[in-house]
Amino acid sequence: MKWNALILPPESMLETVCSAECRKLLEEHFHPVWNTASRDYTQDQLMERIGDADVVLTSWGSPILTEDHLREAKRLKMIGHAAGSLKGKVPDTVFQGRNIRLFSAAPRIALSVGEYCLAVLLNGLWRFPQLHGQVGSGIWRNGAFGRELRGQTVGIVSASATAKAFIRLLEPFQVQIRIYDPYLTRESAERLGAVQCGLEEIMRCPIISVHAPSIPETKNLLSAEYIRMIPDGAIFINSSRGAVLDEKALVEQLRTGRFFAALDVLEEEPPSPDHPLLGLDNVLLTPHVAGMTVEGCRTLMFEIVQDMIRASEGKPTRYEIGETAWSLMA
Amino acid sequence: MKWNALILPPESMLETVCSAECRKLLEEHFHPVWNTASRDYTQDQLMERIGDADVVLTSWGSPILTEDHLREAKRLKMIGHAAGSLKGKVPDTVFQGRNIRLFSAAPRIALSVGEYCLAVLLNGLWRFPQLHGQVGSGIWRNGAFGRELRGQTVGIVSASATAKAFIRLLEPFQVQIRIYDPYLTRESAERLGAVQCGLEEIMRCPIISVHAPSIPETKNLLSAEYIRMIPDGAIFINSSRGAVLDEKALVEQLRTGRFFAALDVLEEEPPSPDHPLLGLDNVLLTPHVAGMTVEGCRTLMFEIVQDMIRASEGKPTRYEIGETAWSLMA
Repeated sequence: MKWNALILPPESMLETVCSAECRKLLEEHFHPVWNTASRDYTQDQLMERIGDADVVLTSWGSPILTEDHLREAKRLKMIGHAAGSLKGKVPDTVFQGRNIRLFSAAPRIALSVGEYCLAVLLNGLWRFPQLHGQVGSGIWRNGAFGRELRGQTVGIVSASATAKAFIRLLEPFQVQIRIYDPYLTRESAERLGAVQCGLEEIMRCPIISVHAPSIPETKNLLSAEYIRMIPDGAIFINSSRGAVLDEKALVEQLRTGRFFAALDVLEEEPPSPDHPLLGLDNVLLTPHVAGMTVEGCRTLMFEIVQDMIRASEGKPTRYEIGETAWSLMA
Repeated sequence: MKWNALILPPESMLETVCSAECRKLLEEHFHPVWNTASRDYTQDQLMERIGDADVVLTSWGSPILTEDHLREAKRLKMIGHAAGSLKGKVPDTVFQGRNIRLFSAAPRIALSVGEYCLAVLLNGLWRFPQLHGQVGSGIWRNGAFGRELRGQTVGIVSASATAKAFIRLLEPFQVQIRIYDPYLTRESAERLGAVQCGLEEIMRCPIISVHAPSIPETKNLLSAEYIRMIPDGAIFINSSRGAVLDEKALVEQLRTGRFFAALDVLEEEPPSPDHPLLGLDNVLLTPHVAGMTVEGCRTLMFEIVQDMIRASEGKPTRYEIGETAWSLMA
């Protein structure tokens, strides 16, 4: 007997997160129930369908599963999220007296974020728009301009999965890695090749990358006082959440032009058209896409579905979130 | 008895290639003769000074050493080039009946070129100017846009030092590396983690990086026929020399917008203001600076001077060019 797999994302989203390989796997192992509408289900439409589902697959834009949905979902055994954060998409009661297992593709997304961080870091060191502009204005080889990453010191705020993915890519550059994470053990830091430091020491590094989850404890973690410590000539990267830093203080510092910032996240997204960061040439802004690469996204549902099959066969899983991990999650 | 070290670069160039540490080392181990003029010596000025020199240090812009200079340089034991290519700076007769040892910082420069290649590659995959532009025009998170390097296939033309530096940085991305180099042995390719291929197979890779030296055999190596093989959506990088490819054919292909190119070198440098590559948004141009990072350049003379000291003490050297290597050199 194959399980019914209720697939919430419409075709337009499946094109991004569900490869042909994944569709085939779903057809082989489940009775997939595809969303044939051109948009996401409403919560009512989800309610009409969830009663028959053994498995629910969600992604960006999928409706939030409420307590009512879970009560209706008598057969539901697994929820898999082919996107980043599952928290907020499912009520915290999901583990209470139910036998529902959760899966999230966040660890796969972290790999893209790691690549993004290295990409914007190198971009900040080379300042390509300026070099390209030099060629256009007839300036040729005006001395050393780009900067090397090799041997530099990189400060990391929070040892999250995205930080770990970034650190792995830094390995051949022989950088010194300093990390701030109050929950990191010394052994885990050592395994990352990193030295544990206080936040102040991190904020004085010539390269700083922020990976803190957005939870009540991290709100405004990088206060104005910390932001002002960023040294001249530094590269500052935020690929986590806008809420973890004092954006007003960051704007004030960036206006002086004394360091470079690459920001994938802002306090308010999208920013208002008159946002003060928009006109600064020492700032690279991207629209919250660090985790959304073409190749990375295309594999998300496949990774989750493979993991669900492993779980159903009693094998070890890679993307499952247990009750403890869930309770600690952003 | 300390040797006389004739330092050809004027102060303006020493600021780029000679660190304070290097000046100290020169003062300690040699009698340095600094160029106190504000510009490079003429060939006559060099002739007046070279007779007393045991060591000559050169860099970008230094006068070419002629046969006449070498005849005059009766005490000369070592020539060190704190820059890239020494060939063309010294006559080929340098090894004939003389006891002059040559040193070139090219291997150190290759490390910067390797970083450049990864930087432009990631830039091409993410297309940051476009993403930044999206934020400015109020487009927020319009689906997956950036691309992952992880697991891709990278084609390398020529296994030069810059190629090796680039390949080392690719290691954590788990890419497939294909390499074309008629002089590379199978064992050396394996040591690089690369598979040897014909040039056609390289030119059909989704990522192509050109590292061929500019020698008669590589002139127009990438002919129009090869250039047309570059696949749609590819990233094409040239950090070697403009002469190795058919630039007209490359322009023609880039005009269609079907792939992205990062070019640090052109046939004519600087390009004329109406060069057809200047207006294309699928092209990143840089002014032949891939090897010229601030940190990389600052260490060039220091590396060479340290190596000369090792050589004078009979220790193994890292930057010396023997007669055989010289004869094979671009």
